[in-house]
Amino acid sequence: MIEQVDAYLSENRERFVDELKELLRIPSVSADSAYKDDVRRAGKFVFDQLQSIGLDTEIVETDGHPIIHASWTGAENAPTAMIYGHYDVQPPDPIEDWVTPPFEPEVRDGKLYARGATDDKGQMFTHIKSVEAWMKTHGRLPVNVKFVIEGEEEVGSENLDHYLSDNREKLVSDVAVVSDTSQYAPGIPAITYGLRGIMACEVKVSGPNQDLHSGMFGGSIANPANALASMVGKLIDDSGLIQIPGFFDDVIPLQDAEREEFAKLPFDKAAYLNELGVGATHGEPEYSTLERRWARPTCDVNGFISGYTGEGPKTIVPSWAIAKITCRLVPGQDPTKVTASLREFLQANCPPGLSMEFVDQHGCAALVFDTSSPYMAAARDSIETAFGATPVMIREGGSIPVVSTFRDVLGIDTLLLGWGLDTDNLHSPNEHFTVEDFHRGTRASAWLWDALRK
Amino acid sequence: MIEQVDAYLSENRERFVDELKELLRIPSVSADSAYKDDVRRAGKFVFDQLQSIGLDTEIVETDGHPIIHASWTGAENAPTAMIYGHYDVQPPDPIEDWVTPPFEPEVRDGKLYARGATDDKGQMFTHIKSVEAWMKTHGRLPVNVKFVIEGEEEVGSENLDHYLSDNREKLVSDVAVVSDTSQYAPGIPAITYGLRGIMACEVKVSGPNQDLHSGMFGGSIANPANALASMVGKLIDDSGLIQIPGFFDDVIPLQDAEREEFAKLPFDKAAYLNELGVGATHGEPEYSTLERRWARPTCDVNGFISGYTGEGPKTIVPSWAIAKITCRLVPGQDPTKVTASLREFLQANCPPGLSMEFVDQHGCAALVFDTSSPYMAAARDSIETAFGATPVMIREGGSIPVVSTFRDVLGIDTLLLGWGLDTDNLHSPNEHFTVEDFHRGTRASAWLWDALRK
Repeated sequence: MIEQVDAYLSENRERFVDELKELLRIPSVSADSAYKDDVRRAGKFVFDQLQSIGLDTEIVETDGHPIIHASWTGAENAPTAMIYGHYDVQPPDPIEDWVTPPFEPEVRDGKLYARGATDDKGQMFTHIKSVEAWMKTHGRLPVNVKFVIEGEEEVGSENLDHYLSDNREKLVSDVAVVSDTSQYAPGIPAITYGLRGIMACEVKVSGPNQDLHSGMFGGSIANPANALASMVGKLIDDSGLIQIPGFFDDVIPLQDAEREEFAKLPFDKAAYLNELGVGATHGEPEYSTLERRWARPTCDVNGFISGYTGEGPKTIVPSWAIAKITCRLVPGQDPTKVTASLREFLQANCPPGLSMEFVDQHGCAALVFDTSSPYMAAARDSIETAFGATPVMIREGGSIPVVSTFRDVLGIDTLLLGWGLDTDNLHSPNEHFTVEDFHRGTRASAWLWDALRK
Repeated sequence: MIEQVDAYLSENRERFVDELKELLRIPSVSADSAYKDDVRRAGKFVFDQLQSIGLDTEIVETDGHPIIHASWTGAENAPTAMIYGHYDVQPPDPIEDWVTPPFEPEVRDGKLYARGATDDKGQMFTHIKSVEAWMKTHGRLPVNVKFVIEGEEEVGSENLDHYLSDNREKLVSDVAVVSDTSQYAPGIPAITYGLRGIMACEVKVSGPNQDLHSGMFGGSIANPANALASMVGKLIDDSGLIQIPGFFDDVIPLQDAEREEFAKLPFDKAAYLNELGVGATHGEPEYSTLERRWARPTCDVNGFISGYTGEGPKTIVPSWAIAKITCRLVPGQDPTKVTASLREFLQANCPPGLSMEFVDQHGCAALVFDTSSPYMAAARDSIETAFGATPVMIREGGSIPVVSTFRDVLGIDTLLLGWGLDTDNLHSPNEHFTVEDFHRGTRASAWLWDALRK
């Protein structure tokens, strides 16, 4: 059966790229209301694709951009896969840095250049085409599928969260499939089985009711800038260890087997430092750079502002100081608990005479999926077939909130199957997607439906 | 002799105020080139005043606004006083907060409202009028006087520094007289005998070549914002003690007699906290608030900026962080030495993988004048006569760089005789000068010329 699907994919390679280009021509920038109609047009394009394949398809209106839902549920006694992706894209700025315009897709050196080529139009499209291949060659799929393709991923997915919560029964599935991550490196496909969580906050320390002359008043009252620097400075000690009380208490340690796998992955430290422009790596001494990025918690100041920040000196005691802080979390850590500890730690270190405000911004827990599940095995086999290499099992340092929502609301794990590369300029000028990776991804997806049935 | 002078001052009170109003009507804002002609006009007004009194007067052209120099040196075997002041003013913004327009002087409730009323047109004018009183009643002065009235005090006095250095011989004097400070409180006139010094710097910590995604990279490289917060946070310990090595080594301690005098001054701590809007004072526990403000060194962060400072969270590791720092210095401390120690301390605490730049911005040493000098005695007596109260001997927490220049370049001490109040809204909307203080100051000045002769 799979031979006919493979043949279909081979025969339609060029058309698939042409259709993807058509989608990429639509400037579906969700963050900019000037593109509102274009975002809807991209959603309609996805709707038309899924409907023409023969799926039960609908445009779900929301308070923002529409969600496209499509399902085929004719495979009795077979599992159901929820396929998630997004048709909206990041703003293309700075436009002048693009070699060819962001919404005029062009293939150069085997790479398809356009905003959204990888993130996520191109990767999402592989699943539409793999489903098409099965439907056109067999009139059916080996498993049941439910597509949920949204238009607000780049602006926080708020309406998606409501949709998922409100449609639990309709969306019941066994596993989610998301292609919005990357391979480990060219020629080294990967399955991402873990994501860090996050907690974000803003802390403001207020002192005098206005900026004061540092000559007339300095030394007699607490300075909010000195105080907040000291408070924030105490979050990490000189050895790189986070000092928030209880921060590490619930951390589930990395398993030896994982550490061994990570250690086997090629990692060029010199190239890494060179790319980032820093002289040395930094962090907990007993962990490798990959471990620090993927599987150890952090406490980063994302922003700090106080007093006079223009040219030259200005001799004031600032009235206030603000810091923005995020902690990346690992399995075991509860964002709510970490937020409370951080708040308490900062408050305890705020000098008398100053007041502290704390804004809890958002949080989500880390996720690690069971790598020995049959879904993982199916994904591994399919990727090996399509990419000609066994995928490595990796984690990622960022968070993908929708994946947490799938687990919390629908109770399912997610297969994070990245076909692109982290060097594909996601969110930057000259975003691109290697055309062969697009075809390999489509084929891996087609094989996955078959493998999931077993 | 002094009786005639006193009589002249009494008879001409109204005219003096009218003439001061005339000067206050000229918007001599030195910082704004749109007012260039007005600044010159104010200088010309001062020139005309001094020339009409019978002094040898000149307009000294500079690269910026002119300096007015005037002298009378007919008092053989008598000391020479250099009278310094400035005819330029701060910008009047925010204009909308003025009850009456800043350059339309008006007396309300015994106070003359206008930009420059106290700082420094009004205070400077007292010395012109006192000299006039002597010249008009006696055709001569008890001492020699050399006026140096500049038009760039509010923008850094750069051309004045050149003028003083280039004209040492012409400007030879025994003591400088400056009225650009304040009384201690209403009814408590003061002589300021000490000023804190200052050193100012900017420190920049640089990490990655651009802001990085804190999920992908956080934990693996040093974060410049965390690092600078920690570096700056270490400058002062939790007890309020500055930690820069050697910082206190050269500090000349406050004398017991001074501390006793300070302790006698009325100080309403509750009103102070209320005015500044803070809940508590802060600083070295073994010193009083006045001591901390006037006579103890500080280390204040004046500004701090790094990363994302807009609304909401942004999950980045910032590329760089900048802090502006000033230390107020006390007698004994060398600004150059403190700057070097601070730089070394920060560098020693800068984590590997980050680079630090340090910009030395400016510095001047603290000053304390001998309160037992005959000049001080003369000032004390004159003020007591005019204000009806013995002046208290105070220090001030700020720096007046020109006073350092007088000592360094001309080798003379300065009598800092403030006729105004620190509540006169200097540099703020609705600046004013109590009319009676203007007259008292003029009379104290007139008596000073007589007292200095003795």
